[in-house]
Amino acid sequence: MPLVRISLREGKSPSFLEAISETIHQAMVETINVPPDDRFQIFTEHSQEGLVYDPGYLGIKRSDDLVIIQITLNAGRTLDQKRALYSALASRLAKNPGLRKEDVLIGLVEVGKENWSFGNGEMSYPPN
Amino acid sequence: MPLVRISLREGKSPSFLEAISETIHQAMVETINVPPDDRFQIFTEHSQEGLVYDPGYLGIKRSDDLVIIQITLNAGRTLDQKRALYSALASRLAKNPGLRKEDVLIGLVEVGKENWSFGNGEMSYPPN
Amino acid sequence: MPLVRISLREGKSPSFLEAISETIHQAMVETINVPPDDRFQIFTEHSQEGLVYDPGYLGIKRSDDLVIIQITLNAGRTLDQKRALYSALASRLAKNPGLRKEDVLIGLVEVGKENWSFGNGEMSYPPN
Repeated sequence: MPLVRISLREGKSPSFLEAISETIHQAMVETINVPPDDRFQIFTEHSQEGLVYDPGYLGIKRSDDLVIIQITLNAGRTLDQKRALYSALASRLAKNPGLRKEDVLIGLVEVGKENWSFGNGEMSYPPN
Repeated sequence: MPLVRISLREGKSPSFLEAISETIHQAMVETINVPPDDRFQIFTEHSQEGLVYDPGYLGIKRSDDLVIIQITLNAGRTLDQKRALYSALASRLAKNPGLRKEDVLIGLVEVGKENWSFGNGEMSYPPN
Repeated sequence: MPLVRISLREGKSPSFLEAISETIHQAMVETINVPPDDRFQIFTEHSQEGLVYDPGYLGIKRSDDLVIIQITLNAGRTLDQKRALYSALASRLAKNPGLRKEDVLIGLVEVGKENWSFGNGEMSYPPN
């Protein structure tokens, strides 16, 4: 059910994008109970003018390798799950494809479970 | 008031995009009381690496013709309205431009009515 | 903490995009208490088919210079703050880079403060 939007500067290789894709998904599976086959991601690549970031907000030193990850998902994850997700995303992306942890920016948008149709025109998670 | 983000693989013709645009809008007008002239849509087209999907999640067989439709709209639609919207989007898009119903993925993000300005710097739907 | 998505027709110059970026940020700092160094923006540029708008919804006459601004931010702004934000965005963008006020479309998506990690894998605004 999560829909993940990933935004970064243009010029990365397909294999770099694939590593980010795989790593983000594994972190979500590991920490917030996302099914292994529930993987839907949209990448957008941007020029210098098209991806604007502050290089020092909150004392974190960001670079042009910044990756912005916005995840729309069902409400209900606990604070501890969210903390675990943030930590896993940054540490795993630091290993593969080798991002700086400072360059992993994450935002969550929570929605109701009745707000998804994953195909066939059906409500995928009807309320009980 | 809905703002619709539509994401699909690159390489479709302008007329194909226009058919998707028109069909999505008609389904929204028909099922969730969107005014006919309240049409605002943003398309993004993506490479193979840029649009990642699982080909079988929930037993639905998706193809590279997958269209992801994320609709930001005012809260308050009933479950029945949401079901009708999902059904109408898939069945109408199957007719025009001829998508497989399995390839219609929909997500809703609900917001407060005071969260929109449709121009002139004014709050478009001030609360009573 | 706001993450701002800005969508407009393709063909504008980098300096035009930079003016929009700067002006939007100043309006947010001025009206809704966004820290000056809390600036994160994602631009997408679109073909004619890729950015669809109604030219007269709510009696507002829009043109191809329409700029759609979707801001994801923490919940809690008052109605007055939202009104001030809309007004400041339109009036400031009318001055620089010189948009028509009718061409400034704004949507807000509100989230919980625990929904952000601005780097290092840490929850940026843990609840008290």
